[in-house]
Amino acid sequence: MGKTSFIRKTSGILRSYFPILDWGSKYTGKTFANDMIVALIVTMMLIPQSLAYAILAGLPPEVGLYASMAPLLLYAIFGSSRALAVGPVAVASLMTAAAVGQLASQGTPEYLGAAVALAMVSGLLLLAMGFLKLGFLANFLSHPVIAGFITASGLQIAAGQLAPVLGIHAEGESFLDIVISLWHSIPTIHVATTAIGIGSLLFLFWVRSGLKPLLIRLGLSAKASDIMVKVGPVVAIVATILIVAGLGLADKGVRIVGKVPGGLPKLAMPPLDMALWMKILVPALLISIVGYVESISVALTLAAKKRQRVDPDQELIALGAANVGSAISGGFPVTGGFARSVVNFDAGAETPAAGAFTAVGIALTTMFLTPLLFFLPNATLAATIIVAVLSLVNFKALKHAWAFSKADFSAMAVTILITLIEGIEPGLIAGVALSIVLHLYSTSRPHIAMVGQIAGTPHFRNVKRHNVVIYPEILSLRVDESLFFPNARFVEEYVNEAVAANPDIKHVILECPAVNAIDISALESLEAINLRLKDGGITFHLSEVKGPVMDRLKRSDFIKELTGNVHLTQYSAVFSINPDLARQTLNANPLSPVQE
Amino acid sequence: MGKTSFIRKTSGILRSYFPILDWGSKYTGKTFANDMIVALIVTMMLIPQSLAYAILAGLPPEVGLYASMAPLLLYAIFGSSRALAVGPVAVASLMTAAAVGQLASQGTPEYLGAAVALAMVSGLLLLAMGFLKLGFLANFLSHPVIAGFITASGLQIAAGQLAPVLGIHAEGESFLDIVISLWHSIPTIHVATTAIGIGSLLFLFWVRSGLKPLLIRLGLSAKASDIMVKVGPVVAIVATILIVAGLGLADKGVRIVGKVPGGLPKLAMPPLDMALWMKILVPALLISIVGYVESISVALTLAAKKRQRVDPDQELIALGAANVGSAISGGFPVTGGFARSVVNFDAGAETPAAGAFTAVGIALTTMFLTPLLFFLPNATLAATIIVAVLSLVNFKALKHAWAFSKADFSAMAVTILITLIEGIEPGLIAGVALSIVLHLYSTSRPHIAMVGQIAGTPHFRNVKRHNVVIYPEILSLRVDESLFFPNARFVEEYVNEAVAANPDIKHVILECPAVNAIDISALESLEAINLRLKDGGITFHLSEVKGPVMDRLKRSDFIKELTGNVHLTQYSAVFSINPDLARQTLNANPLSPVQE
Repeated sequence: MGKTSFIRKTSGILRSYFPILDWGSKYTGKTFANDMIVALIVTMMLIPQSLAYAILAGLPPEVGLYASMAPLLLYAIFGSSRALAVGPVAVASLMTAAAVGQLASQGTPEYLGAAVALAMVSGLLLLAMGFLKLGFLANFLSHPVIAGFITASGLQIAAGQLAPVLGIHAEGESFLDIVISLWHSIPTIHVATTAIGIGSLLFLFWVRSGLKPLLIRLGLSAKASDIMVKVGPVVAIVATILIVAGLGLADKGVRIVGKVPGGLPKLAMPPLDMALWMKILVPALLISIVGYVESISVALTLAAKKRQRVDPDQELIALGAANVGSAISGGFPVTGGFARSVVNFDAGAETPAAGAFTAVGIALTTMFLTPLLFFLPNATLAATIIVAVLSLVNFKALKHAWAFSKADFSAMAVTILITLIEGIEPGLIAGVALSIVLHLYSTSRPHIAMVGQIAGTPHFRNVKRHNVVIYPEILSLRVDESLFFPNARFVEEYVNEAVAANPDIKHVILECPAVNAIDISALESLEAINLRLKDGGITFHLSEVKGPVMDRLKRSDFIKELTGNVHLTQYSAVFSINPDLARQTLNANPLSPVQE
Repeated sequence: MGKTSFIRKTSGILRSYFPILDWGSKYTGKTFANDMIVALIVTMMLIPQSLAYAILAGLPPEVGLYASMAPLLLYAIFGSSRALAVGPVAVASLMTAAAVGQLASQGTPEYLGAAVALAMVSGLLLLAMGFLKLGFLANFLSHPVIAGFITASGLQIAAGQLAPVLGIHAEGESFLDIVISLWHSIPTIHVATTAIGIGSLLFLFWVRSGLKPLLIRLGLSAKASDIMVKVGPVVAIVATILIVAGLGLADKGVRIVGKVPGGLPKLAMPPLDMALWMKILVPALLISIVGYVESISVALTLAAKKRQRVDPDQELIALGAANVGSAISGGFPVTGGFARSVVNFDAGAETPAAGAFTAVGIALTTMFLTPLLFFLPNATLAATIIVAVLSLVNFKALKHAWAFSKADFSAMAVTILITLIEGIEPGLIAGVALSIVLHLYSTSRPHIAMVGQIAGTPHFRNVKRHNVVIYPEILSLRVDESLFFPNARFVEEYVNEAVAANPDIKHVILECPAVNAIDISALESLEAINLRLKDGGITFHLSEVKGPVMDRLKRSDFIKELTGNVHLTQYSAVFSINPDLARQTLNANPLSPVQE
């Protein structure tokens, strides 16, 4: 290898693992100015979200800020999407609360330690999946399962946040538990808190629905209006801080965020506590996969708008690095957020540097603005969460799934029901398991057609759909799938059944035009079919076997042991068994000459 | 519904659940005489096996006899195979020992209770799988995994039985543990036991290899000789009982079976201990599936020789009933045994009644012959097990798998290694998980070909294999698999990548001749592709969509939202986009007129 080609190759590998080398080398002053403005907008949006999601995860609010610095910097280095904005998100925060809540009580150092460990393990899993190219594992979270899971999680989060909005207490590990708990707490509603909470809620809903048309009427562009809408929560926060501080409501029982420790987080490797890590392995895997699936679909959607590339395996590495970074800086699991990525994109983020600048914005907030958050009422943060998550709830998808496929509908309905009743981990696991079982079931029953010859042609078609000639002594079957262990035994049983039902049969031909691949289980099934037919005095033939499949079969003893032959076409198979019969049918229609 | 058709339908359902109604109505005196002779031979073979496998499972020997009565009677009523002989088998006995050994110590009533519960739960699972038509679940035990598992189990059983053959003690939950334990026990070898054990072993190996040629030379038929060979162990048992009794070896430290309680087992429902049942659920499921897979493949092989039918779902019910019967009569898990079913078949069993008569034979043995077993040395029983299981060990399969497919080889090698090192449950679970993951991985990467037009024809072929014309503004992709959630995202990413790599593209056509089915995840991927291409100013077309897939697509909004159209053929898709280009290529070769 020459020196130049070595350098080029090394540089290619470096660029693939560090996309920053690619866009960084083309960075200009204009891009910088642009990315700075974007960062300012996203920072405004991210401050309330990161505080709120930390509280949703059962953690002190500053942990949300910590999780919004290092991860953004690391994603800027490793991420392949130009617009993805990572940080704490609603569903991952709920999953964190569910996982960590089983190991420790909220407010204890063990609880915080477990949340940090969860980010660490989740990051390491994502990195491992990235380096081992295991991104395909995320495919097994099918669309109905993820859609159902997010709808149910959104409901659970909204129900849970109703408690701080009303100034009451409610707890539970599932939507159902929380609703029951809320019901029992209704008599203890706190009026001042409810006024702030419901007020914020109404204001935020109006921001979502009424503000944009207003801004457009006032002359703002649609895009600018959209961005202003996203900054709405900051207005609610500033207003309610002023109200609570001005009226002294904290002394009248309105719960406030209180003292948020300022300053940057201390960097520290989380302790290597294998016993703890093993306990959180399954939740960490679920958070990783759910987060990755959400993140990659946002990234792909935004990239396509500018015909940019997103590398799915590199995204695993970038999200993995972001989570490890979150853990080292005392944060909790993060992933790419839908709403803030769209804002990032719409505001015109040209490079991942916008994310890095956002991190700087959050760092400045942490250093200088935390005292201003003292009087921030929890009810306002809860209201911002409710408004954000209700947009995740989508029951229409259930209706679409019903119309499209009953199997998909069942997977979605089961995921929603079990999540609502039993909680998020059982719901997600049940959904994934059910959709894999349904999928394996459908692949275990391949379509097999009995075929006959179309009179006057050398073509063979399904006897159920075409008017064809069948020879009593020849059974022709066409398999319409690749042959693998999930369906191998089905083929065996099908042939066994078909032969038992037709005592006149002396030859069986398996037509394989759609068999793209074959594994050893299917090979052994073919061998078993061959031996069993031989015992019954029947020859076994194959036809239209594809090149790669034939190459494989030649590496076994099957071809040698086959009582019949492998034929290029179904017609030549029938011809080799009984030339007269085959020709006779052809001649029935003199207009179609043999086209072999 | 008329009265006659009601009766006919009811009778059909009854016959399908009770195959005995079918063959029983045609039963004659001649069949009876024949089945009686078969039963005598199988009884001779089954007595030593049922004692030996009970001891292998860590149970008192009479439990093996109990497991060889009720199950045979119940299989005769419910079984759809004419030749399958059920009862205790080697691998299921080892699995029983492994599962029950984790819950109780051998020799305690808890150990026996857990083994009986295992048969009960296993039977109920099989019945449930039968009624719910879940037989397809057994497909996921691929051939390489089952072959590897049986080879490794055979080695573990043989190693474990070397201890009684040598009169020493060895224990362990895996082959490796047992071999290490044997090694440490070598100094304590018991000479008289070893003489009997090794003597039996040599005799039994000679029976396998040398007796058959001798009998044939003496004028016996090959089939009769085969049957005599299978009765060989009875000779070893009788001989060693006489030696031990005659020489008083029991007093000199040779371990003997001792007092076997005579009489029929008491029938009793095992206690409904849900805590215990939940603990043994996974092992019971594994035993059920392994047993079923072995059993159904023997049944199918033997049925094919006489062109008989075997109903796979009915077999689940029959094996389920057999195991519930075993549990109620104080036995342990049973399934169809390979060797004894072949003997049953070769001896000429015409109906499952032969099995019922065998049960009577075992019952008579239990009632009258158990005192004769007092001096039976454990070493002889261990020798019969070793000879039986060594025929299960098959390393050649590993070589075949290597030649055929590296994925199959890995699944098999991992199953063997983990079983040998860690034990049978971890080995089987790892094998199944690995083979499912490998299968899902392969289905997650469908073959997609970029296609171009063969000059002068309306045909499109893979650009990598054929000399074809490509239009810079049209990207034609052919998907060679059904579209499902495991591969949906791959297609999305593939299109995204291909479009990013070719900035000239204005149209994408997805050719779907091999797409037999589509699920909602794939639909959403198609919708995402459509939207993203639209954002990039590219139209999206489909061609050659099959009828059932098109019906489904019409039930969604996809067709409405599609920026392009759905075309009957790939040629008409290209023609609709740019008629001139399409025609031009056709005219390049005036010999081939348009054949649309």
